[in-house]
Amino acid sequence: MRALLLDGELQFVEDYPTPTPAPGEALIRVRMAGICNTDMELVRGYMHFRGVPGHEFVGVVERAPGAEAWEGRRVVGDINAACGMCATCRAGRHTHCPQRTTLGISGRDGAFAEYLTLPVANLYAVPESLSDEVAVFTEPLAAACEILEQIHVHPTDHVIVLGDGKLGLLCAQVLALTGCELTVIGRHTQKLDILTRMGIATVHVERDAPVEGIQGADIVVEATGHPDGYATARALVRPRGIVVLKSTYHGAVEANLTMATVNEITLVGSRCGPLAAALRLLERGMVNVTALIEACYPFDAIRTAFTHAGQRGARKVLVSLAAAAPPADES
Amino acid sequence: MRALLLDGELQFVEDYPTPTPAPGEALIRVRMAGICNTDMELVRGYMHFRGVPGHEFVGVVERAPGAEAWEGRRVVGDINAACGMCATCRAGRHTHCPQRTTLGISGRDGAFAEYLTLPVANLYAVPESLSDEVAVFTEPLAAACEILEQIHVHPTDHVIVLGDGKLGLLCAQVLALTGCELTVIGRHTQKLDILTRMGIATVHVERDAPVEGIQGADIVVEATGHPDGYATARALVRPRGIVVLKSTYHGAVEANLTMATVNEITLVGSRCGPLAAALRLLERGMVNVTALIEACYPFDAIRTAFTHAGQRGARKVLVSLAAAAPPADES
Repeated sequence: MRALLLDGELQFVEDYPTPTPAPGEALIRVRMAGICNTDMELVRGYMHFRGVPGHEFVGVVERAPGAEAWEGRRVVGDINAACGMCATCRAGRHTHCPQRTTLGISGRDGAFAEYLTLPVANLYAVPESLSDEVAVFTEPLAAACEILEQIHVHPTDHVIVLGDGKLGLLCAQVLALTGCELTVIGRHTQKLDILTRMGIATVHVERDAPVEGIQGADIVVEATGHPDGYATARALVRPRGIVVLKSTYHGAVEANLTMATVNEITLVGSRCGPLAAALRLLERGMVNVTALIEACYPFDAIRTAFTHAGQRGARKVLVSLAAAAPPADES
Repeated sequence: MRALLLDGELQFVEDYPTPTPAPGEALIRVRMAGICNTDMELVRGYMHFRGVPGHEFVGVVERAPGAEAWEGRRVVGDINAACGMCATCRAGRHTHCPQRTTLGISGRDGAFAEYLTLPVANLYAVPESLSDEVAVFTEPLAAACEILEQIHVHPTDHVIVLGDGKLGLLCAQVLALTGCELTVIGRHTQKLDILTRMGIATVHVERDAPVEGIQGADIVVEATGHPDGYATARALVRPRGIVVLKSTYHGAVEANLTMATVNEITLVGSRCGPLAAALRLLERGMVNVTALIEACYPFDAIRTAFTHAGQRGARKVLVSLAAAAPPADES
């Protein structure tokens, strides 16, 4: 099959082996995939990943041995493939299974290929009403929903989202659903304008400029993707407030944890989230994801798509495989 | 009056002015005071404090204009003197009032003197049954109780306390009350033995040695007082677990916050706590604080007491003023 292969550098290959589903897994024909900042980081060496990247996708189940009812269904999938047996899985924390593989990120080929495999238990059927372009946002939207899974956001809370990247824009829209007093702080006027049109307050700051005139937030969501986001978040949150940590980046950060102790701030690390809830929000039209689409490329132009996605201020770049894939060859 | 004055260095002075209570405040004759690690840090320059240190005390109300019912009562006190008017105070977070002074730590002379002042609103009557030696632990015990005020510790949780300092020993005893599976990791066999005799599991590790054979705790209380405690705590806590940050120290720490995000760990800064709850635990005999007493010095030997308190592995050093103070001179 055709696939984008990361092996030190990105290569588009025509003859990558079609994956074979393990017991309990489904073979899925990819229809559309999204490029995430994590994919850009993988190219830079994050997670030392070698293989097919890509973890945001919509596809159709081609084969699901033992779970044939899934065959032909359009699906999205939880990217964490857990063992299901260990203490962590039994405690209901399968996304943290120490034996897990993660689609297109760690130990498992991903969605920038004509086919991928995932456990059937990871699949969620996509409602008819959702286009591929919308449904492909399910995974990152679930990551935004994870915030509400972890903390109680009150309608009276003053909440700040730091960062107007793709994840920041989704977090802002999800948080806006609570009715909270919400301010999004970012560096890109064009992206902030997307939120302004939705009635969400935004503040534009230049790179490295301090955030002024705002402080004492009950909750700050740190989604800048940069190590310096923590210090900004800590300065913006009130005593006994909550900082949600959404950014992932290489290595350590010089962090003043003593001030977090003195001000009794709670820091909440937040990663993958509930796909079913994200699908419900999309089906109800409560989150506008089409405004977040920068461009959609055909699969054979995926390297150009990556270049586009890496441009400063770029929104979500999608790759379409819908018209392209031939039937899977079982060999 | 006699007082220990910190003005670059510690001096014992005989002629320090007796404080005058401001409206709403009480004048308190100090009977006993405890030396906290924070006091040692103040001497090293922490908070740039100049004045009389000391914030753990038992005293008797000498004068309380407008609140005469308090006069003659034996009291302990909340060390955070708040304005009571600002948004933070009105929200019930008076210990975080941005205008607050803090007894013997910031903007207000403390307990290493014959007299101190505090707002009447900060006072708690000490039950008859409690000796001064026990009641003087109310403030640090309240700081340990703050953990249970902030997070829900389940009886089935596996909890680790990192550090066998004075605060660590109090945190361990408070956490043991929940019935949780508790392990205290420390460097001082003698102090760990205090807990062992109470049926609390302990693990002795040498300085800079890794903690082995333990991991996956639901909750880790970081009470080492050292910057390297964070990395150890993060390694010991399970995904989606909680790290309570009790240590305060100068400056920043090199912290891997990305791993907190990936593992969805919650970090909870924790400082001062509920004095009324601490008094109830002491009155019920649920916490053994006398085992934590290293020595008790008369007030005029307080500089020797400080030297003793600074020795490696020292437990709580107390200073007694009970037999010493003459009636307050109102001038």
